[in-house]
Amino acid sequence: MYTVEQTQEIVSQLFDNIHWDDEPTGLYAPIGYVLALGGKRIRPTLTLLAANLFTDNIQSVTSAAIGLEVFHNFTLLHDDIMDKAPVRRNQPTVHMKWNESTAILSGDAMLIKAYQYIAQIPEEKLTEALALFSKTALEVCEGQQLDMDFESRKNVSEEEYLEMIRLKTAVLLAACLKIGALVGGADAVDAQRLYDFGINIGLAFQLKDDLLDVYGNPETFGKQIGGDILCNKKTYLLIKALDKADNSQNEKLAYWLSEEETENPETKIKAVTEIYNQTGTKTICEEKMDEYFAIALSHLAKVNVQEEKKKQLSQLANKLMFREV
Amino acid sequence: MYTVEQTQEIVSQLFDNIHWDDEPTGLYAPIGYVLALGGKRIRPTLTLLAANLFTDNIQSVTSAAIGLEVFHNFTLLHDDIMDKAPVRRNQPTVHMKWNESTAILSGDAMLIKAYQYIAQIPEEKLTEALALFSKTALEVCEGQQLDMDFESRKNVSEEEYLEMIRLKTAVLLAACLKIGALVGGADAVDAQRLYDFGINIGLAFQLKDDLLDVYGNPETFGKQIGGDILCNKKTYLLIKALDKADNSQNEKLAYWLSEEETENPETKIKAVTEIYNQTGTKTICEEKMDEYFAIALSHLAKVNVQEEKKKQLSQLANKLMFREV
Repeated sequence: MYTVEQTQEIVSQLFDNIHWDDEPTGLYAPIGYVLALGGKRIRPTLTLLAANLFTDNIQSVTSAAIGLEVFHNFTLLHDDIMDKAPVRRNQPTVHMKWNESTAILSGDAMLIKAYQYIAQIPEEKLTEALALFSKTALEVCEGQQLDMDFESRKNVSEEEYLEMIRLKTAVLLAACLKIGALVGGADAVDAQRLYDFGINIGLAFQLKDDLLDVYGNPETFGKQIGGDILCNKKTYLLIKALDKADNSQNEKLAYWLSEEETENPETKIKAVTEIYNQTGTKTICEEKMDEYFAIALSHLAKVNVQEEKKKQLSQLANKLMFREV
Repeated sequence: MYTVEQTQEIVSQLFDNIHWDDEPTGLYAPIGYVLALGGKRIRPTLTLLAANLFTDNIQSVTSAAIGLEVFHNFTLLHDDIMDKAPVRRNQPTVHMKWNESTAILSGDAMLIKAYQYIAQIPEEKLTEALALFSKTALEVCEGQQLDMDFESRKNVSEEEYLEMIRLKTAVLLAACLKIGALVGGADAVDAQRLYDFGINIGLAFQLKDDLLDVYGNPETFGKQIGGDILCNKKTYLLIKALDKADNSQNEKLAYWLSEEETENPETKIKAVTEIYNQTGTKTICEEKMDEYFAIALSHLAKVNVQEEKKKQLSQLANKLMFREV
């Protein structure tokens, strides 16, 4: 059984060995640029770890792992256009470094390349893995659509928010695990258990994201603390705060969310954070996160392989829960 | 053997029976809108006709046919963003009717849906059809990239131009035929002959496009005559004119292509058309088109089925060559 670190090293090597130097350069260079930005490579790591529960031959799943990471980065590339984001991982986004047409087209090419990698899955597993991949890819689009829809809505319920993050973030993590498992030789029941483990890890992961944005350590966080607050993003924290706030707190929140407020950004972040604290929202969010994490572990516990093997996945899940970036 | 008209009717029914009413509406309504704009449905028609050469059971290839048309419309949707086109088929483009983010995201969803349709191909043919589809999809992106690159280049050779239209337009027509043939039961040799037929029809088709833009009948054309001339598009006509022009004609062309000229559009169109006439470019283009058409028919002739069956495909090819829109 490979350790998490060994698996991450294998994944790292996989990506180092791909050279995006086909012609025309204008199409392929941005793909190489995006993939060279790095990242934690969580998704391919999960794919390999899941396969490794059932087989020593993880070579059989490396192409799928690459495809899933290429797909993930394609979604980031297109999302960055839609969000008008200037940087990603401290580097200019593709539409800034090149232009928007390039970002659209190279992104399209990435999605196709992802399918080419997925298609290398052994034939007897291909139909099922392909169907899951396409279903997941569509769900990620649906999640992104909901996320965009929510921007112009005054009220978003907790249920709607959780569904949005399930689609936008969790299903892909889940699919990485399930595809890894299926190709590794898991039966349908274990593969689904790993999928459910992934869904719940994904939900917890996004709630952690929401928490870190406000309560992260500025020195380690790497992003503006309170960025979500500044742009009125409807995170779990904000949704719960609006729900729990008394009249006075609701008035204050309404002010901070309105277009009239023109205060210093630091003041806004401080004030909204204080309301989160007063309404116990931080605690509610942490408890929800812990709840999903516990459910995730309960699914993993039922997977029918030795505890020793499952340790790597629970270790990685822990890392994601207790991270500071 | 179904006639071209019967096949077109089958295709029409296929699309009438799909309702893009999933949620979220923001993601799926634009897809329905794009597909409802209609169009000649050449690509799925070619798919069905090719299959029908080898089997009476064309039901087996209808999902692939749908997928190929969905893919084609995805490319139009994204191309329209990149070209900043305000209308398509006399209707607002998606980025105008909704917004750019919607056009990007719904386009992405269309590409995934296309793959879902392709994946319904019977399992024993899936791997090969999928590989051809992905290869083709990537080539279409490469063609679009070259088309964009050429905009900012002063000189584009005939060879480069033909390669660009091969990738941007011809390979998809070819893939439609080959996928139809493969799923219909053709052997590899016949399937490839139909691919080569498609490549050459595609090249002829685009050269016809270039001719119609300048020499089409204004009453039937439906688009501004000389639109390519107005925007200095490097069509086959322009490339050959630059090649054949004598010094005096080259000077005139340089003037009309430069940014200094501010004349009446009609004057520009008339002047450049005159140079095309004088340099014999129109004739050269027609001859090249006829050449590709003849090569196409020679490939079709070698396909190992009764002439009677192949008549439908040659009829459709004729229609494309002698069309006035």
